Amino acid sequence: MTAISLSGKELAASIRARVKETADALTAAGTPPKLAVVVATDDGSSLWYVRSIAKAAAKSGIECDVVDLGADTTAEEIRRTLGTLSADDTVHGIILQTPLPEGATAADLAGTIDPAKDVDGANPASLGRLAARLPAFAPATAEAVMALLDHHDVPLAGRHAVVIGRSTVVGVPAAQLLLARDATVSVCHSRTADLPGMTRQADVLVVAVGRAGMVTAGHVAPGTVVIDVGTNPAEDGGLAGDVAAEVSEVAGALTPVPGGVGPVTTALLLGHTVDAASLLSQR
Amino acid sequence: MTAISLSGKELAASIRARVKETADALTAAGTPPKLAVVVATDDGSSLWYVRSIAKAAAKSGIECDVVDLGADTTAEEIRRTLGTLSADDTVHGIILQTPLPEGATAADLAGTIDPAKDVDGANPASLGRLAARLPAFAPATAEAVMALLDHHDVPLAGRHAVVIGRSTVVGVPAAQLLLARDATVSVCHSRTADLPGMTRQADVLVVAVGRAGMVTAGHVAPGTVVIDVGTNPAEDGGLAGDVAAEVSEVAGALTPVPGGVGPVTTALLLGHTVDAASLLSQR
Repeated sequence: MTAISLSGKELAASIRARVKETADALTAAGTPPKLAVVVATDDGSSLWYVRSIAKAAAKSGIECDVVDLGADTTAEEIRRTLGTLSADDTVHGIILQTPLPEGATAADLAGTIDPAKDVDGANPASLGRLAARLPAFAPATAEAVMALLDHHDVPLAGRHAVVIGRSTVVGVPAAQLLLARDATVSVCHSRTADLPGMTRQADVLVVAVGRAGMVTAGHVAPGTVVIDVGTNPAEDGGLAGDVAAEVSEVAGALTPVPGGVGPVTTALLLGHTVDAASLLSQR
Repeated sequence: MTAISLSGKELAASIRARVKETADALTAAGTPPKLAVVVATDDGSSLWYVRSIAKAAAKSGIECDVVDLGADTTAEEIRRTLGTLSADDTVHGIILQTPLPEGATAADLAGTIDPAKDVDGANPASLGRLAARLPAFAPATAEAVMALLDHHDVPLAGRHAVVIGRSTVVGVPAAQLLLARDATVSVCHSRTADLPGMTRQADVLVVAVGRAGMVTAGHVAPGTVVIDVGTNPAEDGGLAGDVAAEVSEVAGALTPVPGGVGPVTTALLLGHTVDAASLLSQR
């Protein structure tokens, strides 16, 4: 038996349609929505991702300013830039792209992003509001995991969700969001003693490790819903997930890579940007 | 076999000795440390707890102002009071005591507490910094759990820690702190489908539910280290934990109630207050 493919394309398209409509209305009302992406790297896959955001933004009627500070910039310069963008009334969403130069910590610098413009939930204040179940922008990738589960009608309340990975951008916020939806949540990572013993208990398994093919058939019990957050460079120049292809013979359902979490993440980032613009324009 | 008793008294005494020394030095240097406790309830056990903090503060050389707004106050008045105390240079630590009047949300109001004075880690910004592994005051109860585990040399890295309870003040921050120490962490709660099936997997079981005796022998595997955060009113007028007495016949080690997490929590609150005063006096 082969797992059901949990595509993100349909969901992403429906979010983008809603975004385009809102963006056009905002522009017509004299508040063209604008997203600023601060870049301080020359990492190829990171720059590719930024270009794909800029392209998606343009298609959705959102202006996208890529502020490239170069790989040689300093933490202080990044902080100053984020502060300037936070104070700029024409900017509604701000993303700080990683990786960052040596000595610059994303979570620390992101504390400078106005929470009202923190469309990728990178400011620790956003993470804290999320944990306290107060309104805040969630990191788009973590929210995409939830949106995909909902889109495919996967029940969560009382179910056991296992998250592999404890990053501030995916693992930790995904765990918070799953907990807020009444799942029992386990977080595993590189130091977990018996990883297959934990992951085979999962009704829902969220994999956010960043290592191609690290989750194999032995990690997954029959019927499990597997969400693959990985986007690793593949040998053929494309993208490979964290979940090995053989898992589709065991899992009940599995997100494809590419075409699963990725397009939903980008669509939600743009969705957050028009939401931020709508709220800010009412201030 | 009876579980080893993980007393908090010795640890609390050693923390208090360090606090007294620091408090006396701060006072001698012209910065007498001051803790403000904002109260908006007439709940008996809450007022008893506030008196016990005030008494412990006095013994440790810390001034404690109880700002009693009465049970009929409003969220707006509480917010204003927290703002005034945050701006008051003679105040170094601020606690917002719960419960709060109808319509007032602790996590929301605590966003007004200056993070530098947020000695009980109640501001969502503190919770977010904790989740992002940046320096912040942790909620004292959650930190007391960790301090007790360390004091009794309980290993955490790679072990499975199961937390029952997902409150912003204990369960969620305790899970974050355990994760930061490389434990595999599961969070269970009222909606968990098979609670004993989860809790019997625990190397370390943290119980923060607020229901006397809810964890029984059937929830615990032989040898488990059990931390009981519960402080429920007992029939004899004293305190009862969340863990039933019979668990001590199964567990490897168990914190007593009273005399376990409680005294360490109070000592850490005072510790945070002198730490805040030290940092603020250097500004």
